[in-house]
Amino acid sequence: MIPPRLIFKKGALKILDQRLLPAKIAFITVKDAAGVAKATKDMALRGAPLIGCAAAFGFALEMRRLRPASASELKTKALKTAAMLKAARPTAVALFYAADRMQAAALAFADANPGRFTPAARARLLAALDREARLVTKEDEAACLAMGLHGAKLLPRNCVIMTHCNAGALATMGIGTAVGVINAAHAQKKIKHAYSCETRPYLQGARLTIWELMREGVSAELITDNMAAHIIKTCGVNAIVVGADRIASNGDTANKIGTYGLAVIARHHKVPFYVAAPTPTIDMQAPDGDSIVIEERSIDEVVRIKDVRLAPKGVKARHPAFDVTPASLITALITEKGVISPVTRANIKKNLA
Amino acid sequence: MIPPRLIFKKGALKILDQRLLPAKIAFITVKDAAGVAKATKDMALRGAPLIGCAAAFGFALEMRRLRPASASELKTKALKTAAMLKAARPTAVALFYAADRMQAAALAFADANPGRFTPAARARLLAALDREARLVTKEDEAACLAMGLHGAKLLPRNCVIMTHCNAGALATMGIGTAVGVINAAHAQKKIKHAYSCETRPYLQGARLTIWELMREGVSAELITDNMAAHIIKTCGVNAIVVGADRIASNGDTANKIGTYGLAVIARHHKVPFYVAAPTPTIDMQAPDGDSIVIEERSIDEVVRIKDVRLAPKGVKARHPAFDVTPASLITALITEKGVISPVTRANIKKNLA
Repeated sequence: MIPPRLIFKKGALKILDQRLLPAKIAFITVKDAAGVAKATKDMALRGAPLIGCAAAFGFALEMRRLRPASASELKTKALKTAAMLKAARPTAVALFYAADRMQAAALAFADANPGRFTPAARARLLAALDREARLVTKEDEAACLAMGLHGAKLLPRNCVIMTHCNAGALATMGIGTAVGVINAAHAQKKIKHAYSCETRPYLQGARLTIWELMREGVSAELITDNMAAHIIKTCGVNAIVVGADRIASNGDTANKIGTYGLAVIARHHKVPFYVAAPTPTIDMQAPDGDSIVIEERSIDEVVRIKDVRLAPKGVKARHPAFDVTPASLITALITEKGVISPVTRANIKKNLA
Repeated sequence: MIPPRLIFKKGALKILDQRLLPAKIAFITVKDAAGVAKATKDMALRGAPLIGCAAAFGFALEMRRLRPASASELKTKALKTAAMLKAARPTAVALFYAADRMQAAALAFADANPGRFTPAARARLLAALDREARLVTKEDEAACLAMGLHGAKLLPRNCVIMTHCNAGALATMGIGTAVGVINAAHAQKKIKHAYSCETRPYLQGARLTIWELMREGVSAELITDNMAAHIIKTCGVNAIVVGADRIASNGDTANKIGTYGLAVIARHHKVPFYVAAPTPTIDMQAPDGDSIVIEERSIDEVVRIKDVRLAPKGVKARHPAFDVTPASLITALITEKGVISPVTRANIKKNLA
């Protein structure tokens, strides 16, 4: 079993520190939104859906800490808190979704309870926010299960599947998105073998995904990212499934760096390329991939691994953390609401309705 | 300047230990063929042309050590030594070329000097073998220079170029093959920027190529292998050049793992994909890529970097060290004899003639 990623109780949130996995299972305890934002920025906490769930809890914690005395104070603090959470990472839209949703719940409460809050009103506010945050998690769990079943149906018997980065239980509060699909298909005995790309520079595939697959008893091997084309050509890979950090309204998909290259390679080999992501990942405000901000992270994550320096001192490097796969290279989007294929603006709209 | 890779004198060969680069410049001294074979197997010594040059020196050293007393003894020992050297790594054909060439020189000497050797005859033998080995290196140096000039002509002004693995000075006794092309074009002020893919698992790009480019003053950045598609799409890359470990007679090319995927991505973006390699890399015995043996190395090189374990204990992984890029994805082969394009069996034959 995969350890819990977030434990929310008694005005605190325990966050599994994913930087230490798989060597060590340890938690960071935070009591406010800044703590959640920091854990997100530092990548102790990662995975688009999970970041969203944590942001919701972070918002609830922050209101508990700030104890707004009135509707107007609640409004000001809700806006500030949501903005702080959203600033933690720029690409994953689940974070924006969750922060906006919590903010909306707070604003609705303020509208329904104008003026100064009685102690009873404030208690109701805090309980409502806790409930809303728990609901974000509940919905993510349910979405993972639904995606798993929708996705498993797409896979052939004796499926040899490949995935990139970690879109597993560790990236969500449920069974995962892309890895959830693999797990659901595995439960149906449809998976012959799985390949996990290690996913440089942060090695989510080597540290997290292969660990999840091993724990679930899926026959699986780890490969370096640059082996994908050779393995696809020589090892009978017949499906690729990945997660997503943000999907534009036309289906262009931002996901972990390396996803786009893998999609190009999949197309060359005529292997179906699936993206599994819950609907909060779809950003209807983004007309296409060009409007998605790609986070550029520290090159330190590229030039060293823990204490080992890989490249010469003074080296220049790049570290775009995501890339954009155009909708035309994606065989289908798998959401909790069903399968979107072909991936077009119209079909996405229909799925969301 | 790049440190010398091989120093051959006084019956010994000093080999630059490339596993320690760029942190440390240190040499291993060997006095026989087994020493060269071990350094090759352990990857202290790497790079297809360089492995060939070292094997030639290793052969000469071995005959000096064994002091064959007669033509028949020389024949037996020459065959055994060449076989031992060729067993060190299965994919790079320059190794086979050099070992076969030294063996042929020894057999020719035996035929010309039948029966027991006089001390003077043996001295002539050893001098002839040293000369032949030095000639392999001289030819490699010259081939690199010629490839550099042929290749530079293919590149546009303000070229933004990408390379994979290390096909630089460190992989040869000259200025390099692929990096030789970059350096020659840089000398002509044609290179605006270069990208070096880090080349997991052994990180030849991060440790060696970017170091060479920095030393040569080429504007260059390091990227992880999985960034290639995103960088090609967004940073104006207009040429890719790589080396080769073995080229089949139809142009299918075995090179460091990751090359094939990069070629697929290049084709998708309509970016020319060049392979620079001296003619000893062309294996006219191999009808196509399917007949090239792909070395499978230890997965330890995938799951750990120095003392840092990247993946869970008990993990299964793959480590094919090379892949095969079909001729159809290669815009041109660049050899010391000129440019082969389109890459066809007939054009390769013409180039070799």
